[in-house]
Amino acid sequence: MTKQDLIENIKQKQSFLCVGLDTDLTKIPSHLLEEEDPIYSFNKAIVDATAPYCVAYKPNTAFYESIGIKGIWALEKTIEYIRTKYPKQFIILDAKRGDIGNTSEMYAKSAFEHLKANAITVAPYMGEDSVKPFLIYPNKWVILLALTSNKGSADFQLTEDSNGERLFEKVLKKSQEWATDEQLMYVVGATQGSMFADIRKHAPNHFLLVPGVGAQGGSLAEVVKYGMTKECGLLVNSSRGIIYADNTEDFANRAASEAKKIQAEMAGYLTSIF
Amino acid sequence: MTKQDLIENIKQKQSFLCVGLDTDLTKIPSHLLEEEDPIYSFNKAIVDATAPYCVAYKPNTAFYESIGIKGIWALEKTIEYIRTKYPKQFIILDAKRGDIGNTSEMYAKSAFEHLKANAITVAPYMGEDSVKPFLIYPNKWVILLALTSNKGSADFQLTEDSNGERLFEKVLKKSQEWATDEQLMYVVGATQGSMFADIRKHAPNHFLLVPGVGAQGGSLAEVVKYGMTKECGLLVNSSRGIIYADNTEDFANRAASEAKKIQAEMAGYLTSIF
Repeated sequence: MTKQDLIENIKQKQSFLCVGLDTDLTKIPSHLLEEEDPIYSFNKAIVDATAPYCVAYKPNTAFYESIGIKGIWALEKTIEYIRTKYPKQFIILDAKRGDIGNTSEMYAKSAFEHLKANAITVAPYMGEDSVKPFLIYPNKWVILLALTSNKGSADFQLTEDSNGERLFEKVLKKSQEWATDEQLMYVVGATQGSMFADIRKHAPNHFLLVPGVGAQGGSLAEVVKYGMTKECGLLVNSSRGIIYADNTEDFANRAASEAKKIQAEMAGYLTSIF
Repeated sequence: MTKQDLIENIKQKQSFLCVGLDTDLTKIPSHLLEEEDPIYSFNKAIVDATAPYCVAYKPNTAFYESIGIKGIWALEKTIEYIRTKYPKQFIILDAKRGDIGNTSEMYAKSAFEHLKANAITVAPYMGEDSVKPFLIYPNKWVILLALTSNKGSADFQLTEDSNGERLFEKVLKKSQEWATDEQLMYVVGATQGSMFADIRKHAPNHFLLVPGVGAQGGSLAEVVKYGMTKECGLLVNSSRGIIYADNTEDFANRAASEAKKIQAEMAGYLTSIF
């Protein structure tokens, strides 16, 4: 999917919501546990319920890997389902991968050829040759960790070099030598509030994937205030707040109304640019 | 496995070799492609051939994930095979994971409860709460990326802060607030040569997992010179140089002789400490 396609989808849906599919067997409604593949059944219901209100889905690989083959199989089927039934949805494999060149090639193959995701999240610690193998796929995206939403983000990401440049700023600058904003996005946590202004100094046109709204405490209004561009430039993720809004047989309806609520707020913000 | 167990195994085997199981369908001997599970057959033969000469195995998850379910299944079976037949081998899941707390918990569950590896490699970019969930498992290990073997390691890992402390040094220091050398090791690439002396200033007693000997150009003699401690403190990995030494029906014998060659060199170095 191109940047222009994504912007078009945001305009049409009046939404820049990404639904995080952090599906956990211990948290899904118990009646689903009787199904043959509870995780896939849950995801399918969540996707059907929320698709009108979002432009992206983000399965986090950790939740699927934690139960082995069964989980990976559910992940494959989920992505295939979204691709087939909702081909305009942008599918982000939230995997935070990164390794030496020939190994990153394998991760890229997994994400883009095997799973056929549109994007993968990548950790920058190992530098250029760990990221580039993901960039050889046309119209596929790398979403690089810049400033994450967790407390530990302060441990290294905020370290200043001798010129006062913080590590996340170095990541933003350096990575722009590897790809343009047509193939590169950044993860910036919603919990980072006014730091979005600093991010935009270095990445004025890039899309930012913003986790941490809702359960982690980030504010959508603040993200929009400091982070929105003329092209929107934001994909705001909510996982637990939507998919676990309810754990009865009504879970999909409740997920839909939570997603719809966020979409309505987003539509309000989008009137200023589209 | 405890640190003392690992040291004992190194003494007994006169080896600190780790064999990297970067198993790639396009590189294994073609006669194996007729088998039901070529990757598992290859790994089993390599493990049986090399087990006398090494103390650890390191499957890199990327190679298994790249072909989906079949690969994950082969990975599970490989680890189970090593655990059962060679219980003294230290099994490292080379996955370079790391995510926010509740997600890292899932990766830890995958590595330690599901796959039952002894250790997992972890990327430090997201800081303390991304690493700690891996540390709640007694006698299981985190091997944190410090200074990697690839060219891109210079992009961020060598960045100096205003006090002249480089990022990899900050990672070494900070992470020692989270765990001791009984549960924490570091990845330090063999290509970094004399940097091992700098590493040892900050981590005098930690085991270091050292990739990059062989195919990537690192020298074992140099690693030992600057990195070995009184307890050895090194696990040196070789992947391609051993497992792809030959691609005929004789591949396992050739892998054994390559591993044996390295073990013999290691035995020489170990005489100075054990």
